[in-house]
Amino acid sequence: MKNIIWITIALITLSTACAQQAIWGEEAIVSPEIQSDNKVTFRLMAPYADTVLVTGDFLPPEELHTPYGVFDVPGKAMLQKDNDGLWSYTSKTLTSDIYTYSFIIDGVTITDPNNVYNVRDVASVLNTFTISGEKADIYSVNNILHGSITHQWYNSPSLKANRRVCVYTPPGYENSSEQYPVLYLLHGAGGDEEAWIKSGRLPQILDNLIAQKKVRPMIVVMPNGNVTQVAAPGDGTRGYYKPQLMEPRAMNGEFESSFKDIINFTENNYRVIANKENRAIAGLSMGGFHAMHISRTYPNTFDYVGLFSTAMLIDNNKIPEYYTNTNETLKTQMQNGVKVYWISIGKRDFLYQRNKEFRAQLDELAFEYTYVESAGGHTWSNWRDYLTEFAPLLFEK
Amino acid sequence: MKNIIWITIALITLSTACAQQAIWGEEAIVSPEIQSDNKVTFRLMAPYADTVLVTGDFLPPEELHTPYGVFDVPGKAMLQKDNDGLWSYTSKTLTSDIYTYSFIIDGVTITDPNNVYNVRDVASVLNTFTISGEKADIYSVNNILHGSITHQWYNSPSLKANRRVCVYTPPGYENSSEQYPVLYLLHGAGGDEEAWIKSGRLPQILDNLIAQKKVRPMIVVMPNGNVTQVAAPGDGTRGYYKPQLMEPRAMNGEFESSFKDIINFTENNYRVIANKENRAIAGLSMGGFHAMHISRTYPNTFDYVGLFSTAMLIDNNKIPEYYTNTNETLKTQMQNGVKVYWISIGKRDFLYQRNKEFRAQLDELAFEYTYVESAGGHTWSNWRDYLTEFAPLLFEK
Repeated sequence: MKNIIWITIALITLSTACAQQAIWGEEAIVSPEIQSDNKVTFRLMAPYADTVLVTGDFLPPEELHTPYGVFDVPGKAMLQKDNDGLWSYTSKTLTSDIYTYSFIIDGVTITDPNNVYNVRDVASVLNTFTISGEKADIYSVNNILHGSITHQWYNSPSLKANRRVCVYTPPGYENSSEQYPVLYLLHGAGGDEEAWIKSGRLPQILDNLIAQKKVRPMIVVMPNGNVTQVAAPGDGTRGYYKPQLMEPRAMNGEFESSFKDIINFTENNYRVIANKENRAIAGLSMGGFHAMHISRTYPNTFDYVGLFSTAMLIDNNKIPEYYTNTNETLKTQMQNGVKVYWISIGKRDFLYQRNKEFRAQLDELAFEYTYVESAGGHTWSNWRDYLTEFAPLLFEK
Repeated sequence: MKNIIWITIALITLSTACAQQAIWGEEAIVSPEIQSDNKVTFRLMAPYADTVLVTGDFLPPEELHTPYGVFDVPGKAMLQKDNDGLWSYTSKTLTSDIYTYSFIIDGVTITDPNNVYNVRDVASVLNTFTISGEKADIYSVNNILHGSITHQWYNSPSLKANRRVCVYTPPGYENSSEQYPVLYLLHGAGGDEEAWIKSGRLPQILDNLIAQKKVRPMIVVMPNGNVTQVAAPGDGTRGYYKPQLMEPRAMNGEFESSFKDIINFTENNYRVIANKENRAIAGLSMGGFHAMHISRTYPNTFDYVGLFSTAMLIDNNKIPEYYTNTNETLKTQMQNGVKVYWISIGKRDFLYQRNKEFRAQLDELAFEYTYVESAGGHTWSNWRDYLTEFAPLLFEK
């Protein structure tokens, strides 16, 4: 086996960022390390640093006071240095979930060099880890059949562009002639067509719910809701650029009015049941806002609507015309019938009040909806939960 | 528009790692910044750091002397600090390519917090940037038709597992009944089924070559060559773990002997021309090794073979049985006929000598091949080039 060992060592030396790796007999640093009692130890080798902090959503949130209000931001904790310069911190016992975190080394926010798992959050990259158990098991890759994820490009005549969309097809789709219902699932501001896959764990959630026979096998179509992007940052014609939270024109009605192109693409390219009873639309934050307005202005198209932590603009004269005078179309939508109109938000969400006002608007119209109020705020932890709760309500079995 | 501004600010405060972002009037840091003359400026705000280095393949390589030989490793350069604590370094003018880099802050190797674009290299995450121009343009998303990438799971009876594979289908595949030739494309040690997509820019290279009519539209199948993984790290049943360069059993013949399952899956699920004239196999490093042995032991299956920087074990008694006594099967492969047997390596590759010995073995058998020797070493820059050169040789038009 001498050859294999030689090649292995040679290849290892080629790795650029090997400072924290086990080469030439140094011991490997494990970070994060999930202990058996679900405490988590974070480690960073930094002999010359003066302070190292960890910040993330596994810590109790801190309140940030701003001229615009008080907001929850992830808490911080201090790591301790040992004689070798290895910093470490062990958390309290954590409940099952997927968490994100960063280190702050002498004021510089960095990713953990020993953890290759990360997600992009607008213009930042955050590390992730998972505490297994009931909640996270639905996000895990289990030994069951898996659906496919296709990154495909569709033509949008309305936007005069070829644009990318991600499509989940359920296990067995490729080897059957069956037709399936469709959930259109929209991302929030700063997200893109991959957000529900990467942060939302959509493929894992759907695979698990389908295996547990809790949902009907369905197709999930995830478009890009930023009309200024043809695909996720780095995968489009704009090349590499620094992503921003609000792309221009993301909330001006253009995406909503171009949505027919996405429905046409889906119904011409996938084996779908192309009727209202088998169409659902849902979204988080800005995507909830898009879903509300699309379902309202395509009034006899969707029997299922899910609004997760919706970034609801209040109907007044200062907002784009597409979003004003909503009562008439909501009334039509109600008269045409909606089987499930599902609204969810966390008690600590900064959008709580706006959602309350929107519910009051629906109440006045006698528009029926289901309302689910959760703990927590504007978080992926909540959005994964909402999807897990909402999907089983879809489509009659 | 007051509403939108309010929501934007609120959402921005939710971003965890905003230390380097433009909030509350601070100026945004741009790093890396590609200057008009293709010099690149790297920046890091770190007022309390003593030294900040940048290391990457855009710098002249350094030689690392080890007990096992002398190896090229990425060079380093020092950043300079200004009065505000902003460190910066500007490179020489760079030629067109995709580059990777890291910062080293007081000895700790980190990613650039202002650059969200990165690739995983075994157990490290490296930032990337692109210098546009002739070479990188073939890696760019241009305003042309795009193929699809599907992440799909196949059953491998040989390995008793459901495993993930990535499949590129050319533009128009979904809306035709045409049958296509297939290239099976294999990754190296430490890689996985996504390596050719993320680091290899395969979708962009194929889209561009097809648009330029330089290659025949083809399907590209990218399996995972580590039999201990059902999917890329984090996407399989093992959950999150620290990836290692050499997975156990990656070079023992198991992957090669299970390869029939991948061919069966492809030919049963995709519209392929299922004959030798329309099958190609290629791979880089360990994947070149796999491609050599698969094409040899499935002797009448592939008319096109590409061996890029192959991690060639030399035939002796110390290596797994699958890789010994290769002359007989190579002779059979030669007698059955191979249209293109393509070998490429960089002059500075640490595997240069082993490839030379393998070519000598082929010469003795009078086995015809094409040999392309490039500059540079064991790098993605070379592998993207090799793919770009090799693909146009495939399949008669």
